[in-house]
Amino acid sequence: MEFLFNMRKVAIIGVGHTKFGVLKEKDLLDLLCDASLEALEDSNTTEKEFDSVYVGAMCPGEFNHVSGISSALVDRISLLPAASDRIENGPASGGSAIKAGFQAIASGMSELVLVVGGEKMTHIDIPGFITSIVATITHSEAERIHGVSLPSFGGLLTRAYLEKYNAKLEWISDIAIKNHKNGTLNPNAHFQRSIEDFMKSAIKKGKGDWQSVYEFLEDDKVNPIIADPLRLFHICPISDGAAALVLCNAETAKRYCDTPVIISGIGQATDTHIIYEREEMTELKALKIASSQAYRMAKKSPDDIDVCELHDAFEILEAVQSEDMGFFEKGEGAKAAHEGLTEIGGKIPVNPSGGLKARGHPLGATGIAQVVELFWQLRGEAGKRQVEGAETGITCNFGGFGNNILSILVERI
Amino acid sequence: MEFLFNMRKVAIIGVGHTKFGVLKEKDLLDLLCDASLEALEDSNTTEKEFDSVYVGAMCPGEFNHVSGISSALVDRISLLPAASDRIENGPASGGSAIKAGFQAIASGMSELVLVVGGEKMTHIDIPGFITSIVATITHSEAERIHGVSLPSFGGLLTRAYLEKYNAKLEWISDIAIKNHKNGTLNPNAHFQRSIEDFMKSAIKKGKGDWQSVYEFLEDDKVNPIIADPLRLFHICPISDGAAALVLCNAETAKRYCDTPVIISGIGQATDTHIIYEREEMTELKALKIASSQAYRMAKKSPDDIDVCELHDAFEILEAVQSEDMGFFEKGEGAKAAHEGLTEIGGKIPVNPSGGLKARGHPLGATGIAQVVELFWQLRGEAGKRQVEGAETGITCNFGGFGNNILSILVERI
Repeated sequence: MEFLFNMRKVAIIGVGHTKFGVLKEKDLLDLLCDASLEALEDSNTTEKEFDSVYVGAMCPGEFNHVSGISSALVDRISLLPAASDRIENGPASGGSAIKAGFQAIASGMSELVLVVGGEKMTHIDIPGFITSIVATITHSEAERIHGVSLPSFGGLLTRAYLEKYNAKLEWISDIAIKNHKNGTLNPNAHFQRSIEDFMKSAIKKGKGDWQSVYEFLEDDKVNPIIADPLRLFHICPISDGAAALVLCNAETAKRYCDTPVIISGIGQATDTHIIYEREEMTELKALKIASSQAYRMAKKSPDDIDVCELHDAFEILEAVQSEDMGFFEKGEGAKAAHEGLTEIGGKIPVNPSGGLKARGHPLGATGIAQVVELFWQLRGEAGKRQVEGAETGITCNFGGFGNNILSILVERI
Repeated sequence: MEFLFNMRKVAIIGVGHTKFGVLKEKDLLDLLCDASLEALEDSNTTEKEFDSVYVGAMCPGEFNHVSGISSALVDRISLLPAASDRIENGPASGGSAIKAGFQAIASGMSELVLVVGGEKMTHIDIPGFITSIVATITHSEAERIHGVSLPSFGGLLTRAYLEKYNAKLEWISDIAIKNHKNGTLNPNAHFQRSIEDFMKSAIKKGKGDWQSVYEFLEDDKVNPIIADPLRLFHICPISDGAAALVLCNAETAKRYCDTPVIISGIGQATDTHIIYEREEMTELKALKIASSQAYRMAKKSPDDIDVCELHDAFEILEAVQSEDMGFFEKGEGAKAAHEGLTEIGGKIPVNPSGGLKARGHPLGATGIAQVVELFWQLRGEAGKRQVEGAETGITCNFGGFGNNILSILVERI
């Protein structure tokens, strides 16, 4: 792919982000409205005419019995007659919605665009329903019919990685420990407690007594195996929530805000649907291509990145993604996390927001929440979890089980 | 909205179109593949590297238990690692997918793009299931909860129109008669028989004896009322099918084909979700805005249009749309159809393909099938239904019940 390097630049001028978690009192449209209105307010565009609205959501039909939700949103927040569409790309629907909004502006078809993503799932009380719906992104004959779900792929990948690179499951746990810790610094995060806090609370309740967090995490009673070797604390929760961005032609960005952030690179690539057909399970080829595209478009390299948000639906993914985006050598990602290199203040801070593990994972919201976090980090507005001096950030938003990955690179200007 | 008039031009260089109808032997992915591979072949791009693939589909989760189908398609037709997304905008998902593909190229992010839309519904044998799923685009509290479905809105609009403009239901029937006749000239159409043929066949089977097609259409036994005053023959069928376009940067179009067609205008607008809140039910405000945008972008007016494809899910819609796009005065659309002005060879031929009524309406495919038909018309390849000398065409693709409408203007160059 050859980019047109003189294309119009696109800026983020404001953001919105609901609390992620179990939000009983809100339906999907409420959540999308809340994040959108916050982004409009934040970008000083509440009275402006929007050209387009893009909604990232994976399964509003299956989970919420609605279609055409982008049109409903535009009416509800009084942005009529703005054009609007929903973008679906599995758990990467949010990243794809950002790309759609970016292209709307870069093409010259739009000047002012709202991008919002969300999902509402915690109201569903049929056991296994959510996992089975999410599994509709797997291959129906080669995978799904045999009972394979996303968590089982997470388990298989973990096993393959640990064996291939002689890594330890404790290092994967270290990623969860870090992300829970970061989550305690993020008021919007689904989980506001560190794993140590969970342990102390369990001790207090008389559920057991453990000498270390690792021992706690190995206890089947408090941390059961979900997909061997992955346990509950290695896997992201089911969350409700929404996040939003207001994008505009960068030339006009300073009219709305003093410190816009530029989307300077976007990459997206696909890989085989059937995971068995990939040359190497522990390598995310689509991410290598997508992140290379983003770096090339932005004329940056991994060394230029100050902070990143990765798609740790399963904690193994953060390790593998940190390698395939160029931060660590293959097989070194989990060890790097164990050594603290990905903590806030480390070599390359990963998921200061808490990531999918602790911020939560309302599918369609995630790709947008990642960029919202980078927006705050780049403007020095990330509070207690601020990465000092961050000027450049990148994301990995993961669709399918790695068969459609986006990488978005943002910069302060 | 101010367009960037120096944006990159986008050409259509090849198309694909499956038969529409009850296609028992194909699943949704098969249909998308068939249309896509035909478009690749038609555009001489089977060996080329594609940057992006956009899939328009309304309810693949609800109807086919699949998500992430755009990624699955890219793998199945060997276009890895092309970026891919699904676009959902109710029954206008196809039109929105074209717009997404257009913006991918106009922005400079892509050079070669596949746009494909499809839906597979006829395998569903639960009575009312499809209508209830399609009704998820209506407003859940103000409309759907009261049992309102899309056909009932079609009936209400028909009644309002007939009363307001002193029009006759027979004129609405004339639209169905014309579209069925056009369908007999389209080998891909769901229905290959004129209404007169249906009548003759019914007479032969001893079901009755009628002096005219109008008398036949008023017979409750052969043409029952679905949503008063609309009867079965005033409403599009439930169809399976897919249609595809290959788009490229217009500067390179002649490398692939001798007679590319240019997408010179795209408009899209939203209206209130709740129909009751509109000032006037018989006026499609979103279409007025969307078509004005398309005309302005292409520097054309309704007088420049040689052929058009409208969204006649209910035959009343063709009449109203032909007015709101500027071909006839308000209240004159149905009469114009009655007078033959919209026939092939008439003042402004509408739906030479047979429209949704006769070509069929596989939701996500429709917006793309409309542009495929115009592509053939503009290249003089429409066979027996050719509109002589057609150089410019326009579409109306209708999402929700008029709360999200696209209009796409194409030209021969």
